[in-house]
Amino acid sequence: MNAPLPQQQSDPLAVATALAAALASTAVARDAAGGHARHERQLIRASGLLTLSIPQDFGGQGAGWDTTMQAVRILARADSALAHVFAFHHLQLAGVQLYGSAQQQRHLLHATVDDGLFWGNALNPLDKRTVATNAKGGFVLDGIKSFSSGSVGSDWLTVSAWHEPTASALIGVLPTGAAGVHVEADWDAFGQKQTDSGNVRFQGTPLPEGLVLQQPGQAATPKSTLRPQVAQLIMANLYLGLAEGAFDAAREYTASEARPWFASGVARAVDDPFVQHRYGELWTLLRPAIVLADVAGRELERLFRRADDVTAQERGELAVAVAEAKVLSHRASLEIGSQLFELTGARATSGKLGLDRFWRNARVHTLHDPVDYKYRDLGRYALSGTLPDPTPYS
Amino acid sequence: MNAPLPQQQSDPLAVATALAAALASTAVARDAAGGHARHERQLIRASGLLTLSIPQDFGGQGAGWDTTMQAVRILARADSALAHVFAFHHLQLAGVQLYGSAQQQRHLLHATVDDGLFWGNALNPLDKRTVATNAKGGFVLDGIKSFSSGSVGSDWLTVSAWHEPTASALIGVLPTGAAGVHVEADWDAFGQKQTDSGNVRFQGTPLPEGLVLQQPGQAATPKSTLRPQVAQLIMANLYLGLAEGAFDAAREYTASEARPWFASGVARAVDDPFVQHRYGELWTLLRPAIVLADVAGRELERLFRRADDVTAQERGELAVAVAEAKVLSHRASLEIGSQLFELTGARATSGKLGLDRFWRNARVHTLHDPVDYKYRDLGRYALSGTLPDPTPYS
Amino acid sequence: MNAPLPQQQSDPLAVATALAAALASTAVARDAAGGHARHERQLIRASGLLTLSIPQDFGGQGAGWDTTMQAVRILARADSALAHVFAFHHLQLAGVQLYGSAQQQRHLLHATVDDGLFWGNALNPLDKRTVATNAKGGFVLDGIKSFSSGSVGSDWLTVSAWHEPTASALIGVLPTGAAGVHVEADWDAFGQKQTDSGNVRFQGTPLPEGLVLQQPGQAATPKSTLRPQVAQLIMANLYLGLAEGAFDAAREYTASEARPWFASGVARAVDDPFVQHRYGELWTLLRPAIVLADVAGRELERLFRRADDVTAQERGELAVAVAEAKVLSHRASLEIGSQLFELTGARATSGKLGLDRFWRNARVHTLHDPVDYKYRDLGRYALSGTLPDPTPYS
Amino acid sequence: MNAPLPQQQSDPLAVATALAAALASTAVARDAAGGHARHERQLIRASGLLTLSIPQDFGGQGAGWDTTMQAVRILARADSALAHVFAFHHLQLAGVQLYGSAQQQRHLLHATVDDGLFWGNALNPLDKRTVATNAKGGFVLDGIKSFSSGSVGSDWLTVSAWHEPTASALIGVLPTGAAGVHVEADWDAFGQKQTDSGNVRFQGTPLPEGLVLQQPGQAATPKSTLRPQVAQLIMANLYLGLAEGAFDAAREYTASEARPWFASGVARAVDDPFVQHRYGELWTLLRPAIVLADVAGRELERLFRRADDVTAQERGELAVAVAEAKVLSHRASLEIGSQLFELTGARATSGKLGLDRFWRNARVHTLHDPVDYKYRDLGRYALSGTLPDPTPYS
Repeated sequence: MNAPLPQQQSDPLAVATALAAALASTAVARDAAGGHARHERQLIRASGLLTLSIPQDFGGQGAGWDTTMQAVRILARADSALAHVFAFHHLQLAGVQLYGSAQQQRHLLHATVDDGLFWGNALNPLDKRTVATNAKGGFVLDGIKSFSSGSVGSDWLTVSAWHEPTASALIGVLPTGAAGVHVEADWDAFGQKQTDSGNVRFQGTPLPEGLVLQQPGQAATPKSTLRPQVAQLIMANLYLGLAEGAFDAAREYTASEARPWFASGVARAVDDPFVQHRYGELWTLLRPAIVLADVAGRELERLFRRADDVTAQERGELAVAVAEAKVLSHRASLEIGSQLFELTGARATSGKLGLDRFWRNARVHTLHDPVDYKYRDLGRYALSGTLPDPTPYS
Repeated sequence: MNAPLPQQQSDPLAVATALAAALASTAVARDAAGGHARHERQLIRASGLLTLSIPQDFGGQGAGWDTTMQAVRILARADSALAHVFAFHHLQLAGVQLYGSAQQQRHLLHATVDDGLFWGNALNPLDKRTVATNAKGGFVLDGIKSFSSGSVGSDWLTVSAWHEPTASALIGVLPTGAAGVHVEADWDAFGQKQTDSGNVRFQGTPLPEGLVLQQPGQAATPKSTLRPQVAQLIMANLYLGLAEGAFDAAREYTASEARPWFASGVARAVDDPFVQHRYGELWTLLRPAIVLADVAGRELERLFRRADDVTAQERGELAVAVAEAKVLSHRASLEIGSQLFELTGARATSGKLGLDRFWRNARVHTLHDPVDYKYRDLGRYALSGTLPDPTPYS
Repeated sequence: MNAPLPQQQSDPLAVATALAAALASTAVARDAAGGHARHERQLIRASGLLTLSIPQDFGGQGAGWDTTMQAVRILARADSALAHVFAFHHLQLAGVQLYGSAQQQRHLLHATVDDGLFWGNALNPLDKRTVATNAKGGFVLDGIKSFSSGSVGSDWLTVSAWHEPTASALIGVLPTGAAGVHVEADWDAFGQKQTDSGNVRFQGTPLPEGLVLQQPGQAATPKSTLRPQVAQLIMANLYLGLAEGAFDAAREYTASEARPWFASGVARAVDDPFVQHRYGELWTLLRPAIVLADVAGRELERLFRRADDVTAQERGELAVAVAEAKVLSHRASLEIGSQLFELTGARATSGKLGLDRFWRNARVHTLHDPVDYKYRDLGRYALSGTLPDPTPYS
Repeated sequence: MNAPLPQQQSDPLAVATALAAALASTAVARDAAGGHARHERQLIRASGLLTLSIPQDFGGQGAGWDTTMQAVRILARADSALAHVFAFHHLQLAGVQLYGSAQQQRHLLHATVDDGLFWGNALNPLDKRTVATNAKGGFVLDGIKSFSSGSVGSDWLTVSAWHEPTASALIGVLPTGAAGVHVEADWDAFGQKQTDSGNVRFQGTPLPEGLVLQQPGQAATPKSTLRPQVAQLIMANLYLGLAEGAFDAAREYTASEARPWFASGVARAVDDPFVQHRYGELWTLLRPAIVLADVAGRELERLFRRADDVTAQERGELAVAVAEAKVLSHRASLEIGSQLFELTGARATSGKLGLDRFWRNARVHTLHDPVDYKYRDLGRYALSGTLPDPTPYS
């Protein structure tokens, strides 16, 4: 679609940083307004970063997952909703690589590069409301899929559908504009407003064989169950970007705007010992989350590259590393998003600044799956060496 | 103004409960819209509760401060912004009693009862931007006073102004509609939106002698410094109402709407052991805050009734009890307002439900004064028996 | 046995305070040595406080449970092991009142007053290792009972034994010196060393009918299940005494011995803002625990006095109040016992001072039953109004 | 002294692991007894690990600081007191390399290898009680140095002494057996009992020029101020070893000994959801501390190797990384050392098991310098980019 952009040639994290700056300039206003961010999605497309995780063999930039996660995090500092849309695009591309045949990969990934396609999600194997019926040349889909991140405004979708005869889910891909696909922009949460997480309705939608990535009845493998780890680590990096964004915003406000408390005996808020101490406490929430997310990112990248040979043990240990990063970033994003105000004072609650968006975005997004079950999984592992069960969330 | 309403005769907490129900029915919508709640202020007036704390000698209901605080808390469960407006009305009446002469009390409190007056705040002795100049028959005021809770839509204001010749603040009262008083509705915080906390500008505003409650240069007494304790305990009860409201909302959602997590092995969310455990943890934040606020309320009432004889030691010990309640309710309101979502799941973030308002309201309101200085004050007391310095915040 | 002592006539809490001072003078040394505190048990007996909770009708002092709990707490500040022995004596007396016939109560309580009897515990209905067999004139007991607090050196024991024919436990009393009763002083925990919590072995021990307080097969009643609430509230007050003792010890050390940190810029440790702040934090753990324990104590006393009429609802609400106090004091005792050293510095770890005993005693004692199940119980109540199941621990 | 041992040739961490096993077999008994661990110091010497950090040029094993820290941590899991003695030996060797001339390094490090020397600490620049007076051929030392870790039973000491004429401290080395050096084994803390942390008294002790590593009046450099970073990271790794040791001990006990709580509805303690969840929580304290300590260890190694060129900025950033590791391991060691008992139940408090030693050792050792000033330092850095002031503790 678009000619390759100049910045594609540069360091992708520099590109992401520039893109983040562009998103930041309107983030407060768009958070207030909600809705579909057509223009900003176009900025993402124009940045060239939609090809970031696509292997060079298919015309992409061939970045490792560690780098893609860094890009997610950089965008999330500025705008965690669009960072999510961006990240879920790459999650769908991961799915194509993990589930698809060589031919499917070649076809779909090349098309993504050539046509500047933006992918959205309609995959949730636990949700059985969308049903696949066998039909001539493939399947027919009927039903609804909710919380479909990035579906509004997408070009293609990854979809899952329940197949009753095999009591299992198939996974396929479809153009969002295909006949019988209806995307409803009904997401109305108080945070992450522009994630385009609509309902997708299927009404007698044909899914031809060639677009089925995973047949019904196919057993899960360590390879195929890597996809939830990509998804979970995306979550961790989104939370982390929120935590970093909140921390930076607080720091700037304390340094430049906050007034010292009259009883503090200091002339500048930055010199208040309680302010310094609390920054130190928040830092010890943030910094480990960063380091652990980076560890998990490198491990994901390592296993993804040899996905065919990954063992259940390796996959399980990756799931532990990802869960560690997710729990730490969950906590960091909420605590920093809330406690930052102790460090700025009352005037920082002005609606103009929009500093509450960090907590709101973190609060909505951290509910993707319950943190208490992550603690349980980590505890089982730490206590007995039990690896997390491979599920869509672990 | 209004004929006494039937419910004035009933138990004031029953009246408050009914009023809270009325406020609750529109609280989510009004939180979204912000602005001045003319109709709801009228509901408060119509409830008769504006005379709650006024001694019976002056025609009021003669409720103790412990009861008035309960009413504040009940309203705050439903609508913490209007609860604040209500509470600050009574704070001004406390000021009239603590600073005013017998004649001033008689005049102003009777007028409040007879005319259904609603009081607002323009008193902040630390803010020296409003200046009082000596003038014939009293003073003239010039300058601005920000964060003036309840000023928009009020009938009368309590004001403080800096008096340069004595390097001290005077305290007086004025009709909001007096010449030279301009109330600007510029409060735009992301929570507590309807507290009517505008800027008040004084431009050559005459303050006649008869409306001066406390002359410049007058030394603070244990009695006069009771007012900050009324204010601080109001804060605690507002936070507590928010914590209770959030807890109740969570409980209802978990019981009636929440779905059990697929990995929990239970059929109902209420049976999930992690859900139960976390409710238990939050309860141990909430319940002590309630009990300690009640203890402080009874002690405030006891000292207020004998305000002329209160010693600095008694006043200081009250300040400790109030600080305990404030710190505990601060923590409870923020933690419950944020953690409730771990107990409800993602669907509870729908904008329709408005469940984020508890955190937003708590977050904005708990910045009235820094919690770290409360910990410091409590620590000094616990360590060395040092009583908090009497300030506008302690 | 002993002539009534003069201090029996005085305020029992003053007596307890004097007794605590006597225990304190040797507490560090006895904590180091462990073993049976014969002399200190004699001091307790001599104080007259063994009759504290016995109704005046039976010759006792007739103190309420709230007062008895205060005495427990006062002693525990100085010596939580002997406070436990003291408290469990009164727990056995509670059992006599809750389970025993009028005649048994008269006989046993009068004997306790007249002979200065010290009671110990061998009651644990969950432990089925001690078995009761029907025999002529009553039962015969065989088996072992571990964790029998206060058994070593006691005069009488309350015992429970499993009765296979009815698949239930009986409860009785026995002189510790009775034939077939063997108390083994094998308690070797790293804290609460002098609780005399031995194993009691029964070998063909006759339990005559007249000493059976509760027959096998008898259904639990709200009245009979008050005993675990007495036990649980004793725990809470022991933890609280430990927390208070640790807090006081820290405070004294910080004030008189601690050196300011070289980087603090203050001349005295008490002026260090971080020291003050942390004292404030610990105070907000301690103070609510005190207030909630007092609330529960008054409620226990109220229900105990009308035990025959207590409903399951009332009993359950008491259990909630007691659980609140127990959880808060659990947390306070551990945190203060551990964090106090941040406030004193390294020199306070000298073995001579024995300041680690607060944490060790709290740590051992707080394992009586798992705190996580208290949170669960509180959560169930807060979430659904479900009252705690009556068990030996709730 | 000793012929090189076979295991010197093997992987030093395997040697450390074997040594740790040997120490573990008597650790509980020696913790109870305290005193000087002559035999175990000999085991350390015999392991060959005293030459671990010595560069190969001087005949040592040339291990990086990251490896030496791993060895410290491995030993600390089993015996944190002897791990400290071992670690402080290497700290003194670091000092020789950072302060000493090429000739001093050659001489002292070769001698350490050849003679199997064990070094102890008598260096504390903040303590001015030991005074150096100019004398013929060097200085004379007089005074006392307390908290001298590893001094009892050492062969050589690093010493600091206050030099009044220059108002600064000199640093030197001395054989422990030199005339006028008296080591008093008076350390009596309730934990870390066998750290041989005596008082060292100097009485007219000659310190010849050749043994002065740093002359009085010499300005601190980024290189010379690396030594406190070695010391601080040793602390972090000792805490971490304690945390890991406690975690492992808990895990083994829960898995093999702990009984399920009667109300849990599970057959094994490891299946209790609350047990699993709490293990998960503790794991999220432990795991980040491990990863951050490893990051800091690698960075220390990197800078140490090019110590002459290290800039103040690099040194400061290292100090931040080390402070992060120290704060996290501080918290992990105390929380795990205390909370482990929630996961094992009451029977694990038996004195035979000695499981309280983890908390006691952590509690004593974590008081080396106040954690609140570490939070402050981290906060200053995170807020304003201010690097920690180079001091003996940062």
